[in-house]
Amino acid sequence: MKWDAWGDPAAAKPLSDGIRSLLEQALGVDPDQNHSLDPSEVAVRPSALTEPHRTGLATIVGKEQVSTDDGDRLPRAGGKSTLDLLRRRSRGEQDAPDAVVIPGTEDEIAAILEFAAQEGLAVVPFGGGTSVVGGVDPVRGHFSASISLDLRRFDTLVSLDEVSGEAVLGAGVTGPRAEELLRAQGFSLGHFPQSFQYATIGGFAATRSSGQDSAGYGRFDEMIRGMRVVTPAGVLDLGKAPASAAGPDLVELFAGSEGTFGVITRVRLRVHAEPAVTRYEGWSFPDFATGAAALRAVEQTGTGPTVIRLSDEAETGINLATTDKIGADQITGGCLAVTLFEGSDEHTRSRHEETRAVLLAHGATSLGEEPAKLWEQGRFGAPYLRDSLLTAGALCETLETATTWSNLGTLKAAVTEALTSALGESGTPALVMCHISHVYPTGASLYFTVVAGQRGDVIEQWRAAKQRASDAIVAHGGTITHHHAVGTDHRPWMDSEVGELGTAILRAVKNTVDPAGILNPGKLIP
Amino acid sequence: MKWDAWGDPAAAKPLSDGIRSLLEQALGVDPDQNHSLDPSEVAVRPSALTEPHRTGLATIVGKEQVSTDDGDRLPRAGGKSTLDLLRRRSRGEQDAPDAVVIPGTEDEIAAILEFAAQEGLAVVPFGGGTSVVGGVDPVRGHFSASISLDLRRFDTLVSLDEVSGEAVLGAGVTGPRAEELLRAQGFSLGHFPQSFQYATIGGFAATRSSGQDSAGYGRFDEMIRGMRVVTPAGVLDLGKAPASAAGPDLVELFAGSEGTFGVITRVRLRVHAEPAVTRYEGWSFPDFATGAAALRAVEQTGTGPTVIRLSDEAETGINLATTDKIGADQITGGCLAVTLFEGSDEHTRSRHEETRAVLLAHGATSLGEEPAKLWEQGRFGAPYLRDSLLTAGALCETLETATTWSNLGTLKAAVTEALTSALGESGTPALVMCHISHVYPTGASLYFTVVAGQRGDVIEQWRAAKQRASDAIVAHGGTITHHHAVGTDHRPWMDSEVGELGTAILRAVKNTVDPAGILNPGKLIP
Repeated sequence: MKWDAWGDPAAAKPLSDGIRSLLEQALGVDPDQNHSLDPSEVAVRPSALTEPHRTGLATIVGKEQVSTDDGDRLPRAGGKSTLDLLRRRSRGEQDAPDAVVIPGTEDEIAAILEFAAQEGLAVVPFGGGTSVVGGVDPVRGHFSASISLDLRRFDTLVSLDEVSGEAVLGAGVTGPRAEELLRAQGFSLGHFPQSFQYATIGGFAATRSSGQDSAGYGRFDEMIRGMRVVTPAGVLDLGKAPASAAGPDLVELFAGSEGTFGVITRVRLRVHAEPAVTRYEGWSFPDFATGAAALRAVEQTGTGPTVIRLSDEAETGINLATTDKIGADQITGGCLAVTLFEGSDEHTRSRHEETRAVLLAHGATSLGEEPAKLWEQGRFGAPYLRDSLLTAGALCETLETATTWSNLGTLKAAVTEALTSALGESGTPALVMCHISHVYPTGASLYFTVVAGQRGDVIEQWRAAKQRASDAIVAHGGTITHHHAVGTDHRPWMDSEVGELGTAILRAVKNTVDPAGILNPGKLIP
Repeated sequence: MKWDAWGDPAAAKPLSDGIRSLLEQALGVDPDQNHSLDPSEVAVRPSALTEPHRTGLATIVGKEQVSTDDGDRLPRAGGKSTLDLLRRRSRGEQDAPDAVVIPGTEDEIAAILEFAAQEGLAVVPFGGGTSVVGGVDPVRGHFSASISLDLRRFDTLVSLDEVSGEAVLGAGVTGPRAEELLRAQGFSLGHFPQSFQYATIGGFAATRSSGQDSAGYGRFDEMIRGMRVVTPAGVLDLGKAPASAAGPDLVELFAGSEGTFGVITRVRLRVHAEPAVTRYEGWSFPDFATGAAALRAVEQTGTGPTVIRLSDEAETGINLATTDKIGADQITGGCLAVTLFEGSDEHTRSRHEETRAVLLAHGATSLGEEPAKLWEQGRFGAPYLRDSLLTAGALCETLETATTWSNLGTLKAAVTEALTSALGESGTPALVMCHISHVYPTGASLYFTVVAGQRGDVIEQWRAAKQRASDAIVAHGGTITHHHAVGTDHRPWMDSEVGELGTAILRAVKNTVDPAGILNPGKLIP
């Protein structure tokens, strides 16, 4: 991936005329500006790794697997949040890990952790580097140097139990590679988050990722059947059976541990037969509340769509739901929803029919297949659009939460108001768009996209808006994050999320598995 | 409940002629013996609670809510495992908690825990008293006395969010009371474990209970959206949203904590609309492997039955699946399966049709509605049958595990062999029956029922057989318990289940929330 942007430069999304005019007219942004740096202009903080430490690490993994080169350090300097990208586009010295270490075995990881604990080096586990919450920031804390522990060599399908539908995948396997390995044997994982193209199995597990097909295949934490975690205190093999009553579920303690408890090296996952058929249908609702009630009825009845999403009026208005068509003529007024159904022919037919009946009874108008197919084509494209917006001098970021169905409208209004007023105070109008992309019997996620003009110190400008939005989430009963995880950015709200005794429990677990506190300092646990 | 047997004496199940003849002929048991004691013959260990402790507790809850009477202590002397019942039917002094305390508020619980920690009293949270793993045994550990903390006054539907389908229920609400409270408002929880009639919401959460409708409504841990736990270190309000990526899931750390981390006082649960329709169909398979493969196909396809169960040849042979008909003429040879479908008319029709098609394609023969209806009528009856068997001098107990589909046959054979050979060594033939009652995409539970003759020291006889079965479960990849929990009985296998580092983590959590170690000593954590 490009160091200061999302993904593959060849896949960059130039701004359409529609969106350029939107930026100029609504936000006062001049889209012909170029707010990016040439890599040659970048100054990286020099590595603080001592020569003895470098030698010690090289003794464990081989010297070709330890690097202090800026060219290796910079791409692991952080994740892909707007704050990350803005920091990387600003002049001045860039922080980066002091070394990149690429182990090939669990024994090597154990030895690295032992060495790091003894020598006082922070260790930041690194997968695809797609965190949008500061989860892989090279925070050194009180340690002398920070190591980026890159899991890319854990890149295999370790085993596949075709009868049980369980696959063991290495932590460094990326989303596309996982699908490739599994589909070669007739299976699929079905985990397609926005970060799919770059993020890894270990990262999905460490952050409780949730993919766009979660209605059909579940969140990533629901797919996990077990995992192996190498900690400074030893190796854990968690997850004995499809379900168990043998005490607290420790898999659920390490899912979402964000590299602070140990290094996840492999994950045992539920997989399913590659779907034979996909059926598509797009829908229009007169307004968001009507659409949300319809999605609720679908989920509470259990009619079984694989994907079901609803964009609000603002998102529908600029066609953000189908990123290829942003700013083009609207497909529809009101609120756009898309549904996909996967499985056997008979299974998808009956699921589709039952879902249709519920949606139609709740005020939907069918738009045929097209909008759902368009959504699928553009499903991984939004981050490229953000790059172009940032380059053009607009501010663009997303944030997400979840709550119960009964609280959804209140929470949505509160977060929208918080963002609009905070950005307004910074001197720019703001476009706040929202969609529901993950549904549960008792509630749903809310995913906000904000576009505004850059004003003053843009990092501080966004930080203030994000703070206001996060406070609004907590005050109005939402979770501080539905699928982006905690990292550095949501850490100040963890006490509100789980209570001070809850964070004390997390610290007690950490002290047990990582007594020296070397693992991913400054993340997750306040 | 009767102190030395299951449930309501009026619902006792006398042995049919069929089963009496089975006992005499196959197991050499004389069914006219009476192996039970009259309550007047029972000697209860005198209460060791000191008068100052009694006064201290009475100051907190009121003196009418503290009892050291044998009549109150004996019914809380333990759970309802066969070992429990055998112990209570044997002569000699019976152990019992030193006092029964019945708090009415969370503040009272907090005050009791503070007092107990200060004074060195063990506290055993008590719900319905239906544990079959020693989960409520009055273990004092190194403390001077043990208090049974009865949650019966936490008996209300605290709130119901009809839109979101979430109900907050007090920990002391029993299964039938929960359904009664919810159905009055058109909702149902759908949690029907064998212990349904007596067990409580708090107990279900503390033990990761799984009900007979788990295929449709999920395990109890899957229904939990949040809970409040009073610990000696403070109160935890866990569970912020339908789903979250805000770090490890602490709800999953307290679900299954078996009273060792804190006292669960209320649980927020997913509920669903009371089903309009129930459809029934029974099935016959030529053998267990064919039936298991069919259940696997149903679950992996996701055809959506509410209940799906399969009895093996032995269980089918004596009609244990339909307890009212045990020993009567068989409905079928081979293996009996039952399916139920609940929901709206259209939903159940399509689920039923799709399930039918999968089962028929996998070798099932339909038996019509009758066997499924019979199963439903007798669904809570088995424990009564065990009482009659024990009274008649037979040994009868159940145990359970779960594993992947690919390992199911191997594990079933290993456990059956372990039980048969261990009981054979004690000098009795053994009837080992098995069923699948909980299915998951990647595997299923195995539930064993064992009937044998009592030989020698019957407590030691069963303990040896159970030890052999548990070792076989661990050696062959099963979980030590699928839904009975750990308690005292499975505790020796916890290190195998989660590893020594896993149990160290549990101890660290316990030390954080219960530094004095007063909560349910001797349970769960080795």
